[in-house]
Amino acid sequence: MSDTNKTPTTDLREGEVSNGSSVSPDVVVQFIGTIRTPFSTRDQCPRQGRLDGPECRLELLPHWQAALDGIEAYDHLDVLYWLHQSRRDLVLQSPKGKGKTVGTFALRSPVRPNPIGLSRVRLVRQEGPVLVVRGLDCLDGTPLVDIKPSRCEFTPKAPPKDADRM
Amino acid sequence: MSDTNKTPTTDLREGEVSNGSSVSPDVVVQFIGTIRTPFSTRDQCPRQGRLDGPECRLELLPHWQAALDGIEAYDHLDVLYWLHQSRRDLVLQSPKGKGKTVGTFALRSPVRPNPIGLSRVRLVRQEGPVLVVRGLDCLDGTPLVDIKPSRCEFTPKAPPKDADRM
Repeated sequence: MSDTNKTPTTDLREGEVSNGSSVSPDVVVQFIGTIRTPFSTRDQCPRQGRLDGPECRLELLPHWQAALDGIEAYDHLDVLYWLHQSRRDLVLQSPKGKGKTVGTFALRSPVRPNPIGLSRVRLVRQEGPVLVVRGLDCLDGTPLVDIKPSRCEFTPKAPPKDADRM
Repeated sequence: MSDTNKTPTTDLREGEVSNGSSVSPDVVVQFIGTIRTPFSTRDQCPRQGRLDGPECRLELLPHWQAALDGIEAYDHLDVLYWLHQSRRDLVLQSPKGKGKTVGTFALRSPVRPNPIGLSRVRLVRQEGPVLVVRGLDCLDGTPLVDIKPSRCEFTPKAPPKDADRM
């Protein structure tokens, strides 16, 4: 595994706090593919993806390609990815340009206990094992973790269960 | 680790397809707490959480509590959790009540290569290391993976970067 938890208690900005704990390996994530974006350095990444941003590519591994069946019915997808360059120990962070510290869960910073990025993207088209989308903000080469129809337009394929009518 | 990949090629409904591959351990997830819901069996879980659904509790582990600092400024949060009872090998699924098979990434089914659930919830209140929220659909005891301010109302704490103005 190529997992990282770099410099757990060093390289802190003023006010930042690490909990000093090492990563507890509770479960494993398997990458399902790779994301291709025009952003090759962190400075090039926008702070939030835009639905009218540049085209990016979700390249699925061959053994997951069939799992895309039916996805073209959706205009918007939730994409999860692994922010593989992020440290994982900070509880308080000092975002650039602010003197203030903020809790990690009150930020969408890539630095978090599980560095999973989440973007709602627009599906432009499918090209075999590749989805072309707009709305991502991550580095070129970011590992892909999951793709789901975006909830706001998702209608379950099964009838409601009794619990839904409670 | 208590990770699961149960019965990779057995117990398939008609039309369902497993890719037969075992889980590749690329990176590890560390649980940050536990979710408490009124749903103790799968049949009790609604198919989608509702923002006017019952109150649920996100119970943070003590060493992550400080990372909640500032979260009460947000009304809506994105919550990620680990659907720990799900198999991970299906590429095509046959949802109950439909004769049709659909690709895993065209469903929000808990069965997926990385069984990470995602719900947008309403923050009701904070009680120390616990967030009380509405909008979840998962089993009581589900492991908690991440909490983020919901993007639709999230304003970055730092000024826009040059890349945002491109």
